[in-house]
Amino acid sequence: MKILITGGAGFVGARLARELLKSGELAGKTIRQLVLADLSLPLSELLADPRVRAATGTLIAQCAALSAERFDIVFHLAAAVSAECEADFDLGLRSNLDTTRALLDALRAAGNLPRFVFSSSLAVFGSDPALPLPPVIRDDTLPTPQSSYGVQKFICEQLVADYTRKGFIDGRNVRLMTVVVRPGRPNGAASGFMSGIIREPVNGQPSVCPVAPETKVALASPARTIEGLIAIAEATREVLGGHTAINLPALTVSVGEMLQALEAAAGADVRALVSFKHDPAIARLVGGWPAAFDNSRAKCLGLEPDPDFISIVRQYLDDRARESASRS
Amino acid sequence: MKILITGGAGFVGARLARELLKSGELAGKTIRQLVLADLSLPLSELLADPRVRAATGTLIAQCAALSAERFDIVFHLAAAVSAECEADFDLGLRSNLDTTRALLDALRAAGNLPRFVFSSSLAVFGSDPALPLPPVIRDDTLPTPQSSYGVQKFICEQLVADYTRKGFIDGRNVRLMTVVVRPGRPNGAASGFMSGIIREPVNGQPSVCPVAPETKVALASPARTIEGLIAIAEATREVLGGHTAINLPALTVSVGEMLQALEAAAGADVRALVSFKHDPAIARLVGGWPAAFDNSRAKCLGLEPDPDFISIVRQYLDDRARESASRS
Repeated sequence: MKILITGGAGFVGARLARELLKSGELAGKTIRQLVLADLSLPLSELLADPRVRAATGTLIAQCAALSAERFDIVFHLAAAVSAECEADFDLGLRSNLDTTRALLDALRAAGNLPRFVFSSSLAVFGSDPALPLPPVIRDDTLPTPQSSYGVQKFICEQLVADYTRKGFIDGRNVRLMTVVVRPGRPNGAASGFMSGIIREPVNGQPSVCPVAPETKVALASPARTIEGLIAIAEATREVLGGHTAINLPALTVSVGEMLQALEAAAGADVRALVSFKHDPAIARLVGGWPAAFDNSRAKCLGLEPDPDFISIVRQYLDDRARESASRS
Repeated sequence: MKILITGGAGFVGARLARELLKSGELAGKTIRQLVLADLSLPLSELLADPRVRAATGTLIAQCAALSAERFDIVFHLAAAVSAECEADFDLGLRSNLDTTRALLDALRAAGNLPRFVFSSSLAVFGSDPALPLPPVIRDDTLPTPQSSYGVQKFICEQLVADYTRKGFIDGRNVRLMTVVVRPGRPNGAASGFMSGIIREPVNGQPSVCPVAPETKVALASPARTIEGLIAIAEATREVLGGHTAINLPALTVSVGEMLQALEAAAGADVRALVSFKHDPAIARLVGGWPAAFDNSRAKCLGLEPDPDFISIVRQYLDDRARESASRS
C-alpha cells in the first residue's frame, strides 16, 4: 500500500512516519511507499528508508501532481498553526481551507476512494457568549470556535464529511488534543507553552508560562496521539459510525499540576526555571478551549488517555535520551 | 441607509424588498437605496421604485464592484438550492461557498462593518448514523448535515461568525425553516413539494407528494420568515449574544395535517388533487431534517411560529387574490 502524510516533516508527521515504517504495515497491508509532503525535507533518518519519498513545496501547488497518483491512505496533518492564523487571516484561509479543499479534489480526481484521516483539533471548541460550553465535551457537543484556526479546522471537517458522503474519499475526522511534550523550538501555536514549560527547563533554559497555574488543559502524549491516528486509519466504517469528528482521549490536568510533575521527574531546580507572565491573547485562546472530554467513541476504538502527566514528562525525557544517544 | 439583498429577484428576496420599501426604514433609519442583486431582474413593481437599483449577473462576478460600495445592511439570500447542490457538487460549492466568501471579502474590503444577515437553513441538520438528532433541536444542537447544501450553509455560518469575530462585518446567522406556500413554479429544492401540494391544487392542478403523510416538517409562512429576517437585522449585538446561528421559529406539522388544512380552507375537491408517490431521494433528504425546535433565542427577539397550518394556507389564498386583483 501507498501512504501520503502531509506535514510529513513536522513533529507529529515524522513520528507517525517512523511508527509506520517500523511496523511495516497498516490495516493489515504491507507499506510499499510512504510519501512525506511538506515545505521542507523530512528527517534524514526517514529519507534514508527506501520506501520513503519526499514531496517538497507548498501542498496546494503539489495537488495537481498528487491527483495523478493513487494513495491507499492519506494522513492530512499539514496546517498553519493557531497563532499564525490569528495573526494573518488570509494565510490561515489559504493554508488550511483552500489547501485542504485542493487536496480533497486531487484525491477525488484520482478516483480510488482512499482513506483520508484529517487531523482536526480541540481548538474547534471555544466559548460563545450566548452558548457557553458544557463542562464535559462529547462528540456531539456543538463547536463554536473562537479562533480562525478552529473555524478553518471545523470547516474542513464538514468538507471531509461531505466528500465522504458523496463517495469521493473514505474520510475520518479526528480531533487531536494538545500534543505535549513537543521537541525543538516553539512553533507559533497558542498551545506552544505547554511543551515549552517542560522542554526548556529540562534543557536548562528558563521558560515563561503565559496563563495562570490553575488553567486546565486537555493533553495527549506524542505516543498516544500517533496511536489514535493509526487506530482511526485502521478502523472499519462500521466501527466509526458516522462522519462526525471523533475527539481523541484527553488527559485533563492543570498547568500547576504539570509543573508538579516536572519537579517530581526532574527536580526542583528544573521546576524553578519556569516563571509566570500573563499574556492576554494566549490566555483568551487557551482559556476558551475545553479541558474535559467524554470520549465514548474513541474508547470503542480501544483508545485511552495518558494515565498521568508524569508519564508524559518521562516519555519526553526518554525520547531525548534516545536521540542524544543516537547522535553520539 | 443603503441595503443590499442578494437573491433579490427570488421569492423571499422580493417579499423582503417589498416590506422594506413599504416601511421605508430599517433599524430606525430611512432607506435611501435598495440594491437587488440576482441572476435576473427583480419584479417590475420593485424596479419602479426610485430607491431600487438592480444588479444583475452572477454574484461572484459582481463582488469586485460591490467592494467599492458601502452598504449599511446586507441580506445574503442568494444560493443554489438543495436538490441542485446534491445533483451538481461543484455547482453547489461555487454558488454557495465560493460566492459567499467572495461577498464577505468584498464587504471586508469596503471596510465599513455592515450588518450582514446570512440566511442559513434547517437543512444544516441531518441524522448522522453515529449521532442521531435529538427529538427537539436547540440552537446548540450539533448540525451533522447529510446534504451538500446543508454542509455549504453550515460552512458559511462558520465564515460569517469568524469574519464577525475579526471585526470585518457585523454578521448574523439565521436559519430559515421551510417557507410555505411559495408561489410560482417548483424551484429544485427538496422541500419544494411542501408548497406544491398546496399551490398546485388551489390552482386546479394535480400534485404529487413524494413523502408519507405522517412525515413531520418544520415550516414558516413567508410573512413570519420576513419578520424573522428583519428582526435579526434590527437586533443589537447584545440581544443576539454570540455568533452561533439562530433557528427561526417553526410550526411543526405532518404532511397529512397540511392536507387536512387544505381541505378545510379550500374544500375536498381541491384536496383530492393531491396523490402520493414515494420518492426515495427526496424522502431521505426531507426525512433527515428535524421537525421540532426549541426557539428560546428567537423568542427573545419577539419571534413566534405561525399559529397553525390553516393560517398559512389562508395567507397564500389572500396573497393570490391580491395579486390577481392587481393584475386585473
